[in-house]
Amino acid sequence: MVAKILFAAHEKHYDEWRTVLASELAERRVDAEVVYGADGANDFSYIAYAPDGPLNDFSVFPRLKAVLSLWAGIEDLVANPTVTCPVTRMVETGMIQGMTEWVTAQTLRHHLGFDRIVNGQDGKWRHHLMPPLASGRTVAVLGLGELGRACANSLKALNFKVIGWSRTAKSIPGIECRDGPEGLIATVAEAEITILLLPHTPQTRNLVNAELLAKFRNCAIIINSGRGALIDDDALLDAIAKGRIAHATLDVFREEPLPATHRFWNCPQITVSPHIAADTRAETAAPVIAENVRRGECGEAFLYLVDKSRGY
Amino acid sequence: MVAKILFAAHEKHYDEWRTVLASELAERRVDAEVVYGADGANDFSYIAYAPDGPLNDFSVFPRLKAVLSLWAGIEDLVANPTVTCPVTRMVETGMIQGMTEWVTAQTLRHHLGFDRIVNGQDGKWRHHLMPPLASGRTVAVLGLGELGRACANSLKALNFKVIGWSRTAKSIPGIECRDGPEGLIATVAEAEITILLLPHTPQTRNLVNAELLAKFRNCAIIINSGRGALIDDDALLDAIAKGRIAHATLDVFREEPLPATHRFWNCPQITVSPHIAADTRAETAAPVIAENVRRGECGEAFLYLVDKSRGY
Repeated sequence: MVAKILFAAHEKHYDEWRTVLASELAERRVDAEVVYGADGANDFSYIAYAPDGPLNDFSVFPRLKAVLSLWAGIEDLVANPTVTCPVTRMVETGMIQGMTEWVTAQTLRHHLGFDRIVNGQDGKWRHHLMPPLASGRTVAVLGLGELGRACANSLKALNFKVIGWSRTAKSIPGIECRDGPEGLIATVAEAEITILLLPHTPQTRNLVNAELLAKFRNCAIIINSGRGALIDDDALLDAIAKGRIAHATLDVFREEPLPATHRFWNCPQITVSPHIAADTRAETAAPVIAENVRRGECGEAFLYLVDKSRGY
Repeated sequence: MVAKILFAAHEKHYDEWRTVLASELAERRVDAEVVYGADGANDFSYIAYAPDGPLNDFSVFPRLKAVLSLWAGIEDLVANPTVTCPVTRMVETGMIQGMTEWVTAQTLRHHLGFDRIVNGQDGKWRHHLMPPLASGRTVAVLGLGELGRACANSLKALNFKVIGWSRTAKSIPGIECRDGPEGLIATVAEAEITILLLPHTPQTRNLVNAELLAKFRNCAIIINSGRGALIDDDALLDAIAKGRIAHATLDVFREEPLPATHRFWNCPQITVSPHIAADTRAETAAPVIAENVRRGECGEAFLYLVDKSRGY
C-alpha cells in the first residue's frame, strides 16, 4: 500500500519538496507519495509540517503515524491539543551549517566593531578602533542542542573563550559547560557576548527577563537566533535604555514578521534580522523526512522524536 | 658585553615594548638593553623597526647585525638602499590570529549580506534575503604565506569552497592551490569573493589592474588586507562604476591614513577600513624579536630572514 504524506507547509515550498522528497523516498525504496491539500484526510499516514502552512487542526486525520516537523522549533505542535500522534523535530546539516555561519558572523561583527567602520565612511581614519583578539573575549552560548553545540565549536575554533550553558548538564569536549539557574547567572555575568539558542518551552519562556538582564555583564551584547519568546521585549528595551545592554541582534520574535510598529525597529541598539539565520533546506532536510517515513513504515523508532513532557 | 637594541617605531609603543621585550630577553638570558632615540649610533647591534617611527637613514649605524621588523610588510626596508645588513620580517601568532578573525568576519559579512540587514532597519521584513550556505560559495585567497594559509584554513573550516593562489607553487592540505599567471586568471574568474594577502613586491605591485579586473567573475567582491599597492586604485573605481566588481572592502592603502579627499571614501561600493585587520601585538611579537637577538648574539640563523632578491 502507498503511504500518503501531506505536505502542510507554505505552498511556495511544495514544488521543490515534492521533487526532492520523492527522490529520497525512492532511494530508500519507500512506497509513499507526497500530496499538497488535505482532501481525503482519512488516507494520510504522515504530515510534513511547518507553521507557515494552512494546518491547525490535526484531529481530522484519524490514521496519522507521525507529524514530521520541517522546522527545528516545534513549540506550536507541542502546545496543539489536536496533535496526539508522535512528533519529530528537524535536525539537518543545512540548518546547522546555516546557523553556525550566521552566529559566527554576528559574533565576529560585534567582536570587531564592524558597524562603526561600515557606517563611518566619512574620511576620518579611526585606527584606534583596533579590536582585541578573540582569545580575550568571553562568549556564552545558552542552549547546547545540535545548533548550540555547532556554534560553540565554531567560535572555539576562532579562539573565543566560550562558555556553554544548558538547563540540564551537558558536555562538549574542550568547552566549559555549566547548567542550572546559578550557572546561568554566573555565565551571563561573565560573557561580553551572549548567544541564545534555547528551545521555546514553558521553562525557557521569558528566561531573559528584567531579573536576569540585571545580572548580565555591563554593556553586554545579546544575539538571539533561538526563539523570540526567550526574551521579555519590554525588559530588553528597558535594559538597553539604561545602558546595561549595549546591543541586541535579534533574528527571532514573538510575532513574525515583526510588526512595523514594534519598538525594536526604532531602537538604534537593536538590529532586527528577518529570521534568516537558519532555514530548513529541502536538499538536506528531505533525507531526514524520508528516513522517518521509512522508519514509520518499518515500525522502527523515529529520529528526533519529541518528548512532549520536556517540550522539545 | 651588553647588546644594544634601538627601538625605532612610533614613540607611543615604546613603554609597552620596553617592558615586554626586557622580560623576553631575560627569559632567554640574553644580555641586551632596549633604547629609544638614536644617540650613540655606533653602539647599536639591532634595530627593532616599524615605518611609523622616525628612522629612514640606516647608514649611521656601522655595527648593525640585523634590522628586526615589527611589521609583516617590509617593502620599505627592502627598497631602502641604506639598509645593508640582514632584515627579518615579523611572523607572530597575534598578528596571524587578528588577520584570520578580520578576514573571516569580512568574508562572512559579504557572504551573508549583512549590510542590507544592518542598514535596513526600516520596518520592512526582508526574509527573502536568506543567504546560500558557505559550501555553495567560492572564495579565493591570493597569497599563501603564514597569513594567507591561516585565513584559507579558517574559511575552509566554515565550509567555504576555498581556492588558494600564490605566484610560485605552494600547497595546503585539503585546499585546492594554484599558481602562476594562468592560475590567477582562472581563480579570479571563479571566485565570488577574492581576498588579497600578497606581499608588496615589484612583481605584485598593481597586480589587480584593469587587465586583471576584466577577468574577475562578474559582480565579484574584493577584500584587501595585504598591501594597498596590490591594487590600481583608478582601475578598481572604474570596474566598480561598470558594475564588474560589486564591492571592495579595503584595509590597506597606498597612502595611510587614506587622505580624506580620496575617491574611495565616497564610493558606496567601497568600505574603507583604517588598517585594523592585524597589528603587531607586543605580547606575542616581543618573543620573536628577543629570539632573533638571541640568535644574532649566538651566531645562529635568524628566524624569518628576508630574501631581498625575492622582496619578502
